[in-house]
Amino acid sequence: MEERLRKQLEFALEIDKEKNILRQTHLSGHGRRENDAEHAWHMAIMAYLLREYANEEVDIAKVMLMCLIHDIVEIDAGDTYAYDEENLKTQKAREDAAKERIFSILPQDQKEELTALFDEFEAYETAEAKYAHSLDNLQPLMLNDSNDGGDWVEHGVRAEQIYGRQRKTKIGSEKLFEVTDQIIKKHIERGTIRE
Amino acid sequence: MEERLRKQLEFALEIDKEKNILRQTHLSGHGRRENDAEHAWHMAIMAYLLREYANEEVDIAKVMLMCLIHDIVEIDAGDTYAYDEENLKTQKAREDAAKERIFSILPQDQKEELTALFDEFEAYETAEAKYAHSLDNLQPLMLNDSNDGGDWVEHGVRAEQIYGRQRKTKIGSEKLFEVTDQIIKKHIERGTIRE
Repeated sequence: MEERLRKQLEFALEIDKEKNILRQTHLSGHGRRENDAEHAWHMAIMAYLLREYANEEVDIAKVMLMCLIHDIVEIDAGDTYAYDEENLKTQKAREDAAKERIFSILPQDQKEELTALFDEFEAYETAEAKYAHSLDNLQPLMLNDSNDGGDWVEHGVRAEQIYGRQRKTKIGSEKLFEVTDQIIKKHIERGTIRE
Repeated sequence: MEERLRKQLEFALEIDKEKNILRQTHLSGHGRRENDAEHAWHMAIMAYLLREYANEEVDIAKVMLMCLIHDIVEIDAGDTYAYDEENLKTQKAREDAAKERIFSILPQDQKEELTALFDEFEAYETAEAKYAHSLDNLQPLMLNDSNDGGDWVEHGVRAEQIYGRQRKTKIGSEKLFEVTDQIIKKHIERGTIRE
């Protein structure tokens, strides 16, 4: 087999491990914890279906690919919960090392392409990155809402923490932030999110 | 909330159930059974990275979306194992009913779009459909190969059955079929695939 194809298939097999990286979010119907691959799949479809609500016009193929690969680094770095302030401090260093190891399995040109796409997502500057982040926020919020806010209750998360993250949805989509805001307000009222 | 957005979000929540539909394939490292959402995520990334091997030029955004949604009907219809001849007979009727129910949750234009994309995949006629099917075949073959062919052993699958399905990979990608053929031959030699 050609070296190029061998590397591509080795990478394809390596990323299978993302299915074992568990998040704090639970599946709808008070299900088990979600893993990163499922989250990425869900985000990518939502990104496609909701693209009319992006603040700026986006290259939707790029957004979908960004969604699909944005958590691959967690194979080594693990999932860092959005409200875990201690682990958030070391997140970048852990993810940078993972990015180098995992994307290096690919042929050089594809390593560079996926690294650039991952960095673009993290930098939060392009229309695609901003919109992809909106989905990264909305997808778990939607699941957690469907489960009566159980993940927020379990972690005792406060409204200001949730807004700290979720307010950024506005940068990618004003409309999706409106929905987000309604959901958060409802849970503050119910007491599932602490004030 | 506008009716259109409400429907889109209802659909987004509904497809969460795909994460509970188990396939016969096991994750690498002799892991647990894979679910449909993970399979679709994996296929979509592989489709992107291996697109240079498609027999015909493809619209890769379309292929990725096709990969992501092609198993949504299994939320109602369940997964039909590729070598389960009894259940294969009723697969189409079960999947047609599921397609109607699930895609009808969406606004009409998006219902029509996703239904058409699903039908295009099933029809196996366009360059995108043929290539997407190559990945639908290669992804579980790759995992099963990494697990010493355990899924074939478990089901006592014969070489002719495997070729019956996997030979179609050639229609989408001659190159990916070469890899497939090498893997199958190796497992026949080892006895993990019955002659």
